[in-house]
Amino acid sequence: MAVVQCVPNFSEGRDLDKIEKIVEPLRKKEGVKLLNYEADKNYNRLVVTVIGEPQQVKKAVFESIEVAKNIIDMNNHKGQHSRFGATDVCPFIPIKDMTMEDAVNLAKELGREVSDKLSIPVFLYEDAATKPDRQNLANVRKGEFEGLDEKLKDSNWIPDFGEAKKHESAGAIAIGARRPLIAYNINLDTDNIEIANKIAKTIRHSSGGYRYIKAGPVEIPERKITQVTMNLTDYTKTSMYRAFEAVKMEARRFGVNVTGSEVVGLCPMEALIDVASYYLGLENFDLEKVLETSLME
Amino acid sequence: MAVVQCVPNFSEGRDLDKIEKIVEPLRKKEGVKLLNYEADKNYNRLVVTVIGEPQQVKKAVFESIEVAKNIIDMNNHKGQHSRFGATDVCPFIPIKDMTMEDAVNLAKELGREVSDKLSIPVFLYEDAATKPDRQNLANVRKGEFEGLDEKLKDSNWIPDFGEAKKHESAGAIAIGARRPLIAYNINLDTDNIEIANKIAKTIRHSSGGYRYIKAGPVEIPERKITQVTMNLTDYTKTSMYRAFEAVKMEARRFGVNVTGSEVVGLCPMEALIDVASYYLGLENFDLEKVLETSLME
Repeated sequence: MAVVQCVPNFSEGRDLDKIEKIVEPLRKKEGVKLLNYEADKNYNRLVVTVIGEPQQVKKAVFESIEVAKNIIDMNNHKGQHSRFGATDVCPFIPIKDMTMEDAVNLAKELGREVSDKLSIPVFLYEDAATKPDRQNLANVRKGEFEGLDEKLKDSNWIPDFGEAKKHESAGAIAIGARRPLIAYNINLDTDNIEIANKIAKTIRHSSGGYRYIKAGPVEIPERKITQVTMNLTDYTKTSMYRAFEAVKMEARRFGVNVTGSEVVGLCPMEALIDVASYYLGLENFDLEKVLETSLME
Repeated sequence: MAVVQCVPNFSEGRDLDKIEKIVEPLRKKEGVKLLNYEADKNYNRLVVTVIGEPQQVKKAVFESIEVAKNIIDMNNHKGQHSRFGATDVCPFIPIKDMTMEDAVNLAKELGREVSDKLSIPVFLYEDAATKPDRQNLANVRKGEFEGLDEKLKDSNWIPDFGEAKKHESAGAIAIGARRPLIAYNINLDTDNIEIANKIAKTIRHSSGGYRYIKAGPVEIPERKITQVTMNLTDYTKTSMYRAFEAVKMEARRFGVNVTGSEVVGLCPMEALIDVASYYLGLENFDLEKVLETSLME
């Protein structure tokens, strides 16, 4: 049986009532399992993870996108995370018995439906991208909600579905297909965001760092700390421990310490086991030695 | 769905034909998965690992016990490992959606069946023990097959199931329930076994170390190294990283380095994830954030 994961991100991280309304369509649906949702006040953003039967997941997620369109007004939205829509991004991740191509097709089906029924312009990104410069979500979202009118005048940024016109309150949406990524944040014992930014630059691909790390700085004012916030876009090639040790190493030059880290949303078992294997220096270890591997076969 | 692991040990490690006959009932059974079996010639012993649905596992393991009874004659058995029965021990380990109490009940059900149908006296051990001095398998098995007649005369050693009379050829059997243990070895860059021994003593429970570590020294002459070889008998209370860091810390006083480690047999995912969580300093992390956890539910 095919299983897809879908991780829509919504631009609401503070109003619990609205958050529940957005998540509601993903509950108690046949063939759909709501795994996790986490709202971040500083980001003012909600990250939801569902898995299940591909068509059922697509239908349920569409309903949440519709709710978000109805209750979020991007004209009043402020948060530290870049965003350009009420539902900002919606990636599909093939988990079991389906190919990346299947996930791309699912993204396209949802994209067409969102533009047809909700009048929100849709950009396809990552593995679903129709042009190379749309693969990278940061490019697609560049200019954010406030820059959408300008962006949509550019002939290079005609949406994949829908007219070249932003939705007045809901903006635009990026729908895509990708490998599982790990949203991973490392805490620094400094409130100086410039330091977090300098460290982020040393490890991220776009500034010369590791191939599968996207990174930026973020402030956590209530704890008086900063974070290097990351997406590890291929943990089989750039492991979590490598990101962690690289940040520790760079932090030293600023007299700053790494005090911990966090995973946002879900994380594949394999990525964590690789971390354990590195720190324990495990010899001849592979996933077959993990009891649960045999439980899943 | 509940999953139990069962690791029966049989007193036959040399005759491949007999070994296959013992293992045969554990193959291709609905709801039962044979994970691994290893025969040791010096020990003259066979260790089998199966997992699956508790009742199905119990039924299949009973069949193997019956086969072992029919083809092993303990009067002719010689080996380096202590043993007192054709099927010597049979522990059940709760893996998923079942409690230790469920595993204890399973052990008791099997025990009753083995004594009723096969006329083998049964001692319950570890978490299934009915008296404190039966918790430790070494106590239960003391005197071995050759001392069984004597032992069964002792009113303190009346079997939990069956008459106080050994089976003429199959002896007795210890059936129990226990937590999963991890067989874990840490490599030292010294060939001096005295150093490995001194380090082992500092970390093991019996010499004043951690509560859930059993440890000893071992030589690996072909690599000119030694190991601290361990059983971690409750990884939820004494974690792998703690054993690893404790050995590293103790090794320093001898100018010795820890060069790596290894897991023998299977290891629960949770134990490895705890290691990753420690070294990355993960905040707010639990098993629910591991993707595979939700796939297994």
